[in-house]
Amino acid sequence: MSLPSSPAGTPPVSAPDASAPNASASGASSPGALKVVALGGGHGLAASLSALRRVTTDLTAIVTVADDGGSSGRLRQEFGVLPPGDLRMALAALCGDDDWGTTWARVVQHRFGGTGELSGHAVGNLLIAGLWDLLGDPVAALDWVARLLRVTGRVLPMAAVPLDIVATVDGVDPAAPQAVSSVRGQAAVAVTPGRVRSISLVPSDPPAVPDAVAAVLEADWVVFGPGSWFTSVLPHLLVPSLAGALAMTHARKLVALNLVPQPGETEGFSPHRHLEVLADHAPSLSFDVVLADCGAVAGAERELAKATEELRARLMLADVAAGDGIRHDPVLLAAAYRTAFGATASDVMTDNTGQPGERG
Amino acid sequence: MSLPSSPAGTPPVSAPDASAPNASASGASSPGALKVVALGGGHGLAASLSALRRVTTDLTAIVTVADDGGSSGRLRQEFGVLPPGDLRMALAALCGDDDWGTTWARVVQHRFGGTGELSGHAVGNLLIAGLWDLLGDPVAALDWVARLLRVTGRVLPMAAVPLDIVATVDGVDPAAPQAVSSVRGQAAVAVTPGRVRSISLVPSDPPAVPDAVAAVLEADWVVFGPGSWFTSVLPHLLVPSLAGALAMTHARKLVALNLVPQPGETEGFSPHRHLEVLADHAPSLSFDVVLADCGAVAGAERELAKATEELRARLMLADVAAGDGIRHDPVLLAAAYRTAFGATASDVMTDNTGQPGERG
Repeated sequence: MSLPSSPAGTPPVSAPDASAPNASASGASSPGALKVVALGGGHGLAASLSALRRVTTDLTAIVTVADDGGSSGRLRQEFGVLPPGDLRMALAALCGDDDWGTTWARVVQHRFGGTGELSGHAVGNLLIAGLWDLLGDPVAALDWVARLLRVTGRVLPMAAVPLDIVATVDGVDPAAPQAVSSVRGQAAVAVTPGRVRSISLVPSDPPAVPDAVAAVLEADWVVFGPGSWFTSVLPHLLVPSLAGALAMTHARKLVALNLVPQPGETEGFSPHRHLEVLADHAPSLSFDVVLADCGAVAGAERELAKATEELRARLMLADVAAGDGIRHDPVLLAAAYRTAFGATASDVMTDNTGQPGERG
Repeated sequence: MSLPSSPAGTPPVSAPDASAPNASASGASSPGALKVVALGGGHGLAASLSALRRVTTDLTAIVTVADDGGSSGRLRQEFGVLPPGDLRMALAALCGDDDWGTTWARVVQHRFGGTGELSGHAVGNLLIAGLWDLLGDPVAALDWVARLLRVTGRVLPMAAVPLDIVATVDGVDPAAPQAVSSVRGQAAVAVTPGRVRSISLVPSDPPAVPDAVAAVLEADWVVFGPGSWFTSVLPHLLVPSLAGALAMTHARKLVALNLVPQPGETEGFSPHRHLEVLADHAPSLSFDVVLADCGAVAGAERELAKATEELRARLMLADVAAGDGIRHDPVLLAAAYRTAFGATASDVMTDNTGQPGERG
């Protein structure tokens, strides 16, 4: 009755007793599949993963662990664990479209109602926290949940300890618009009335998750965004071991821009301002593709092209928005990713109707 | 993205996309397997199920839903749901002995520590409560959890609504030993310092779970106990639809006695007193086999044989205790069940070394 620290002692998602009826829902990647790493958090990362699981089976999500609000914040405070919410959301996004996947995705995302002690907790957060409490190893626990849900790919935390985001913000006080303030905590940063200039992490040199570093080093493509720019997309660049791996990897890098600015942290930010902020936080990093929705950047193409060039990347415009113009359509976004990953550098800008990509 | 109220719209444990690598861990029963129904709750039912899953794949646990203490009591109070604890424990007992089964059994049984809002909650209780909250259908939700854990068999609640046990107790007040009191609530009954005479349910005519009634009607064998006699074993006899099914079924009935009296509700009860109480609560019901541990009833065989005869049953003595003499050994108990189920009426008392039983 011993409990392995990791399922079968190997990367569990490819363990021989993987449960799924077919490879695409088992987490087992196909040999030769494009190795894609997605960095982010929250709804933006979930949108990206919902698309990427249609593009490749060798998919690793590396997820921010700085949330301090809501159910995650309460669990973090009660047990000192990583905030599970963004990890849970990534796992749900990687669930399959069959009965199993759609049901369990809904179950883990479900929040208790009412006003009692469980009110507001997401079921999946409690499951993940329970596994962490029992197993002690956050990565092994996430791998067990991934097997349970039969997800495509793997979900890893950005760092092995919970982090705090500290933002440098101006304009918090309308009476002193030039004053620079410091706002601590992801929940506070996300809704600051001021203008975020930059962020830093506490602790500033958190311990890495070795499998996350290895995934970046071995990737064919690394995808940044979409998502809350300061609180979900940029934090990875501030984890030294991840930043080092991003600088060293031979993977190509794609930046997926948001469809709309986020009220609070990026209110009023133009698309090209997002790229400038990215460059500010990773001055030496080069990028290969910037992917933007045609409608979302209409009228701002010129500045965006200029900012893209400064990242040493190429701009790819595609229709990737759902009907509401606010969310990404997973099928359209998948098609755009396929084109980006499969096309040669010279034709990245052509269209978004490409077939499943060849390994670039 | 529709969510079926029941997996695949059929009894989910035998749904075609059942996930398990082998039949014994899939919940899918083999054709022709002995149909066994186990009635009970708590640790006693779990011990019985750990044995019965080694005997047959067509196994249904029908579980008391009157708990009002601990994590179950809190969830019942917060959401008005069935108390999930005994259902969870039954599911855990039906998990397989492989890595998957042993790990998930430990996860669902794990309780959060500390002193916060989750302290004391079992992870599996939260998962079940989450599914109930989302799906609304307690039986479909339990079937989903059963598939997730790849259990052998099925776990059903004894009634469709939470129940309260009310016990008639004497000797609660040492100063008035003849006074008869009423003690309400399973948690209170289990630890009453008085002597329990009988129990009743509130409501007295709870709505049935149709699948539980059907399982009793279709069973080859129905197993009562072991377990807390008044709070886990007898309540089923007081649910009118279940009692009716027990009276009508052609299934044979086995009573598995406890190894030791339970402090509180059956303190000082002899083995034969347990049978007398059973007969008191189901005067018209006939039984076929009373199974007792040799060591546990040593010295009381004569009275036990007499009480067994009054139930119109035969007494089977076997070594079924683990080394500590307190818990049942699942392998020994399984062997005894096999003998009981497989032997003809005339040789039930022979031994406990039988091979897997033929359908009786």
